[in-house]
Amino acid sequence: MKHFLSVNDVEDIDALVNKALQFKMNPLVSQQIGAGKRIGLVFLNPSMRTRLSTQIAAENLGMKAIVLNVNQDGWMLEFEEGAIMEGSSVEHIKDAAPILGTYFDILGVRTFPGLKDKEADYSEFYLQQFIKYAGIPILSLESATLHPLQSLADIVTIEELFREKRKPKVVLTWAPHVKALPQCVANSFAQWINAWGKADFVISHPAGYELDEQFTKGANIEYNQDTALKDADFIYVKNWSAYQEYGKILSEDKNWMLTRSKLATTKQAKVMHCLPVRRNVELSDEVLDSACSIVTQQAGNRVWAAQTVLAELLKAK
Amino acid sequence: MKHFLSVNDVEDIDALVNKALQFKMNPLVSQQIGAGKRIGLVFLNPSMRTRLSTQIAAENLGMKAIVLNVNQDGWMLEFEEGAIMEGSSVEHIKDAAPILGTYFDILGVRTFPGLKDKEADYSEFYLQQFIKYAGIPILSLESATLHPLQSLADIVTIEELFREKRKPKVVLTWAPHVKALPQCVANSFAQWINAWGKADFVISHPAGYELDEQFTKGANIEYNQDTALKDADFIYVKNWSAYQEYGKILSEDKNWMLTRSKLATTKQAKVMHCLPVRRNVELSDEVLDSACSIVTQQAGNRVWAAQTVLAELLKAK
Amino acid sequence: MKHFLSVNDVEDIDALVNKALQFKMNPLVSQQIGAGKRIGLVFLNPSMRTRLSTQIAAENLGMKAIVLNVNQDGWMLEFEEGAIMEGSSVEHIKDAAPILGTYFDILGVRTFPGLKDKEADYSEFYLQQFIKYAGIPILSLESATLHPLQSLADIVTIEELFREKRKPKVVLTWAPHVKALPQCVANSFAQWINAWGKADFVISHPAGYELDEQFTKGANIEYNQDTALKDADFIYVKNWSAYQEYGKILSEDKNWMLTRSKLATTKQAKVMHCLPVRRNVELSDEVLDSACSIVTQQAGNRVWAAQTVLAELLKAK
Repeated sequence: MKHFLSVNDVEDIDALVNKALQFKMNPLVSQQIGAGKRIGLVFLNPSMRTRLSTQIAAENLGMKAIVLNVNQDGWMLEFEEGAIMEGSSVEHIKDAAPILGTYFDILGVRTFPGLKDKEADYSEFYLQQFIKYAGIPILSLESATLHPLQSLADIVTIEELFREKRKPKVVLTWAPHVKALPQCVANSFAQWINAWGKADFVISHPAGYELDEQFTKGANIEYNQDTALKDADFIYVKNWSAYQEYGKILSEDKNWMLTRSKLATTKQAKVMHCLPVRRNVELSDEVLDSACSIVTQQAGNRVWAAQTVLAELLKAK
Repeated sequence: MKHFLSVNDVEDIDALVNKALQFKMNPLVSQQIGAGKRIGLVFLNPSMRTRLSTQIAAENLGMKAIVLNVNQDGWMLEFEEGAIMEGSSVEHIKDAAPILGTYFDILGVRTFPGLKDKEADYSEFYLQQFIKYAGIPILSLESATLHPLQSLADIVTIEELFREKRKPKVVLTWAPHVKALPQCVANSFAQWINAWGKADFVISHPAGYELDEQFTKGANIEYNQDTALKDADFIYVKNWSAYQEYGKILSEDKNWMLTRSKLATTKQAKVMHCLPVRRNVELSDEVLDSACSIVTQQAGNRVWAAQTVLAELLKAK
Repeated sequence: MKHFLSVNDVEDIDALVNKALQFKMNPLVSQQIGAGKRIGLVFLNPSMRTRLSTQIAAENLGMKAIVLNVNQDGWMLEFEEGAIMEGSSVEHIKDAAPILGTYFDILGVRTFPGLKDKEADYSEFYLQQFIKYAGIPILSLESATLHPLQSLADIVTIEELFREKRKPKVVLTWAPHVKALPQCVANSFAQWINAWGKADFVISHPAGYELDEQFTKGANIEYNQDTALKDADFIYVKNWSAYQEYGKILSEDKNWMLTRSKLATTKQAKVMHCLPVRRNVELSDEVLDSACSIVTQQAGNRVWAAQTVLAELLKAK
């Protein structure tokens, strides 16, 4: 694995999932493979779970991790080719990235979409600049359109909990939110579940919230949430802003919030969310505080997902 | 020791003090007991000494420490039960704390009082939420009403310096300040000195600055600072805002600032302060720059206090 | 070496340079000499390269490093002697530095000049306060007037690349910028090149930009950039504000920007810059993106310079 930017960098999802579950059983089993290696964690946007889980994962492999918060401390990066840097940006990515490539063995990068220019966001402009100029393996810590470490942790969690022989029914359902959010978590989950191929996958959202087909192709789209949830084994709740009318909030319909009563027709479905979650907006307290919520386990599995991917990146070096 | 929130979590103060002095002699003597363990240091309010001393203490025990500054980086926590999270808070403590409990073995937490709602502050609402939801040992890094790591370091410092057979006279004296400060350091010092029982303890302050009796009961209150300081062996200088008229500044009387001339009637008293100190407001330069000041030694002992408590928490796990 | 504040703290520059190149070959060769030691990195001003390279250098020697950003998190330091601290400063350097001296074995400090009061800046007031009160070796991470870790890395880079028997011609040339910058990098480079004595050294800048002679004495000053660049082997591009008319921007002449055509008369000169660089203001894209730019290598050598100096400071303790 040269970089880890999406499921397309993965040869064998099941092998990754199994490896992650092994790390969960024995976190320090590979403490030597990262000895003397160093990862830089560059955040163009803030993070809690991703920062902690990746840092812990790196340490479990014997690596050192150093966090860098860009755009704080006066360190504003310029990304525009040919820019005459007379403004507030103090350093160009063309100069910063190669040096990070000198200081580190792997570079984790988090970028966010602006949600204004679809083409720029979906070209992964910022992430691509890091790939182009750093010269070392890049680990996506969430990019403009995808969040592959989250998706791997999601599949690890489903694999861990579902013990029946049949395929689980997995429903990704849109939920209301107070802000316009990226599509990354939803895009990435769809892309991974499709590539994994071991679930009956349904996506449910109000009309207008269709995701980019390059990620969802193969999934059933069901506009009626009740219909979608029927017989569900896992429900992934997540808000995203519109992809077609890019970055727009098209619905504030509170009926899309997942509540206890909606679980009645499911197969005692487990409820997932990548967190942070807006309680009583996306998901009701009664669901989150019940035994059907597996959000903590899901977030806990972020460590093992990151550790597995880091181990792959180290192996390839 | 399950948690470390106050002196009430301590079985044997003398044993802790002795252990701390042993760690001071040999910081790395127990470098194995924290191997593979991890502490999260969550600051809802900024910190210098507490952050550094706890981080160093953890590393001396072989632990890894990771610092998290809440309410920075857009990570605003919600604490209200049943909140409909449509505002600026992005994550509820009910979701954040269990995950921190998954990522860490021990969680250090610093909270501050709002100084507006006495009941809320004195219920230790924020700290209690972490205890309730994290599911791992909580180490208070200063809470709304107490600062037990500071108090342990204070007693270590007194024990280290006082070599006579009689009980030392220890005076906690109020000092002016430009801001309304919490009562925690004073509350906690009173609580620990009372529980320790090895000092003649006097508290001196202007009328109206009486502390909560649950912490001070057993101490002499003396409103005349000159009378209080007579024959003192140790003088702990500290500002706090009023407890009765909660959070109010009732006096700006500069005569309460500790100056050199006030030390004349003492037994060459050593002067303590938890730092940071407002020079020439709380304490005069001439005192702080003289040999009677032990504030640096006191702050240095924060490491050994933290190391001792962490060792206890690790033992109990 | 007791402190590392300038080239004056160095007995043998060549020995340092050779040591740095050895560390570059084998970064972990001295991993034991810092075991159990701890460095605090105090930034009164932000930093990327210096923070990372020093942190990595310390870890390569087995040390622990902890970063402290002063003036953030409400930790405002007071430096004025005798101050009545009724304002926004919460802690005096006289109290903070001794405690840092207790917590750490070495203290790295970055300060910046205000560029308003030449005498205060050139007395290195802030740095001197740390030296006076911390009581442990101080490592300059760039001060008001000098940047010795940068200069050592600069000389390491020249030594590494220049393989001829004759002396290289090294030209330090002023470049335009949008802000008034300190003179430190230029001062320090001049001071080191002069002390090193192994280069023909020319400084070129518009009239009025003469640097302090205590650093430049011995170098040729050439006001015509074209003349200065002729036959150059290394060109160090850097902006600084005026020293005489202190802190002023006297020229915005874009002709001083280093472009490709200006390299024609050089001996295939290598182009240096300490970074961050304002592209197409100080240096053109065509130069920075060409093979003659060695800025990444130069920044990479910051690690080995820092590691060498830390090893010296540890040896002296």
